[in-house]
Amino acid sequence: MDILHYQKDFINYLESKKWVNEPKNLYEPIDYIIKLGGKRMRPILTLMAADIFSGTYEKAMPAALAVEVFHNFTLIHDDIMDDAPLRRGKVTVHEKWDINTGILSGDAMLILAYQYFENYEPIVFQKLAKLFSKTALEVCDGQQLDVDFETRNDVTIDEYINMIRLKTSVLVAAALKMGAIVAETSDENANLIYEFGLNLGIAFQLQDDYLDTFGDPKTFGKQIGGDIIENKKTYLYLKSLEVAEEEDRGRLHLLYNQKSKDNSVKISEVTQIFIQNNIPAFIKEQIQNYTEKSFKTLAAMNVSEESKKGLKNFGLWLMNRSV
Amino acid sequence: MDILHYQKDFINYLESKKWVNEPKNLYEPIDYIIKLGGKRMRPILTLMAADIFSGTYEKAMPAALAVEVFHNFTLIHDDIMDDAPLRRGKVTVHEKWDINTGILSGDAMLILAYQYFENYEPIVFQKLAKLFSKTALEVCDGQQLDVDFETRNDVTIDEYINMIRLKTSVLVAAALKMGAIVAETSDENANLIYEFGLNLGIAFQLQDDYLDTFGDPKTFGKQIGGDIIENKKTYLYLKSLEVAEEEDRGRLHLLYNQKSKDNSVKISEVTQIFIQNNIPAFIKEQIQNYTEKSFKTLAAMNVSEESKKGLKNFGLWLMNRSV
Repeated sequence: MDILHYQKDFINYLESKKWVNEPKNLYEPIDYIIKLGGKRMRPILTLMAADIFSGTYEKAMPAALAVEVFHNFTLIHDDIMDDAPLRRGKVTVHEKWDINTGILSGDAMLILAYQYFENYEPIVFQKLAKLFSKTALEVCDGQQLDVDFETRNDVTIDEYINMIRLKTSVLVAAALKMGAIVAETSDENANLIYEFGLNLGIAFQLQDDYLDTFGDPKTFGKQIGGDIIENKKTYLYLKSLEVAEEEDRGRLHLLYNQKSKDNSVKISEVTQIFIQNNIPAFIKEQIQNYTEKSFKTLAAMNVSEESKKGLKNFGLWLMNRSV
Repeated sequence: MDILHYQKDFINYLESKKWVNEPKNLYEPIDYIIKLGGKRMRPILTLMAADIFSGTYEKAMPAALAVEVFHNFTLIHDDIMDDAPLRRGKVTVHEKWDINTGILSGDAMLILAYQYFENYEPIVFQKLAKLFSKTALEVCDGQQLDVDFETRNDVTIDEYINMIRLKTSVLVAAALKMGAIVAETSDENANLIYEFGLNLGIAFQLQDDYLDTFGDPKTFGKQIGGDIIENKKTYLYLKSLEVAEEEDRGRLHLLYNQKSKDNSVKISEVTQIFIQNNIPAFIKEQIQNYTEKSFKTLAAMNVSEESKKGLKNFGLWLMNRSV
């Protein structure tokens, strides 16, 4: 099945729901963020996994919606924490309303996400809710580590990979596993597709780090150099500190510990340091490693070769976006 | 069983848990708020209900903990929204750490609450989680209505009762019903104890309104007149607008729509208006009504007379606190 087909069906499902209830001030911000758009990558993964393991995906719609609503809840609360003015090119919820509204509407979305699992019978319900709680807590852990790293100067690459695993990858992995749970496939298959998603999620985030500095401004969708402006200690930065000579390391430290008057000069200088130290090659190697690791889990999976090809194509599609 | 016995056992259970995990900055605020104290009224209700319907309450400990952790989650997020500096006489989480910490640690607590239900097998798990989600969303609705009422001048007494039902009573009712669910009693008993809690919760909140103005400063625990200072449109205020002559109504409107330089003068003047209009008698009648309504549901309940007496005594204990 075509990815865009899942996407279209999911968007139809999402738009068929009534999002605004009383009290309106609680639910209108939910309606707003849910309809801001996005690729709907995570719910697509849930539908795709269900389809692979059971030949049907309609039954997985509520689980897919839970994943998407949870993801949007994290966006609202993260945007408050980051003081972000824009999300997908539109004003963020706490800017359009206020911080209190963002907090409370976000809380309600986290609860709504759990409610969508009520469409399933008790055993499937419990499996979904357990995986969801574990994942949601890991996402909180990852967000906290990300905040902690801002004020630390001794973050290792392993710690960084662990942080993006928690903040980003576990939800990708869980989205897939939820589809497997709804399809009532074997635990082995469900765990394999989780592993597939976990490694693909890390590859995806590392590629996001790469594109943030080296992507094509026309297709990347975000401002090139955004991570550099915000002094984000991404793989590019941490790897540079590991391999560069003292001069470049000192320069990077300095550039990342002061407010720059001219961001374009800062971006250009940091980018040069990355290039001189061969960091694009290092990160591409890592992306390749995690992608291959992800694809390897497919070998052991008990599904048709065609399904495996579908998952692999999705992975390739994801990894070849906007490069 | 003695209420203080449940309380002691619950506190032991709570303190036997390890609250601080990695990352510490996420879990230390949770440890802090959980150990700030409080009467632990809600988890006691869960234990008491389980005991009444099954003769044992140890099995209900995780459900009781879920209720208490959820309640404390609402305290953290509400304190941010209210910009409250103190909670139980200690600094609030967002004051001791910061707002972002309060948001994220609160989120994690909401997820942790769901995880405690994983101690139960699928059917009980689903019943608990469904009731919990419904209740949690109602508490969000109630909080939003409370916020909305701050800027409205046409709030009716019915709307007010509905708001306190959502913001306060449904959790009291759900705490009791969760004990009934764990005890695997009949749906009828579970629904009756929910009704008991719902009406008792409303009586409890109305009494809180009464005590906030007319309580004994030595025993009430909060500042007398706090609601008046904050222009809270409680039952006392709304009933005054309903029954008072135009002069008192105008005076109240004025007092509640301006910042007062001298709070003690404002408190004393508003209190006089309440007294002159016989509001204490009106609210006491309502408290009596809801308490009696609550006790009436006990008649239909299929438990021993001794158990009914226990619940009634708990209600009386709760209603006679600090008057």
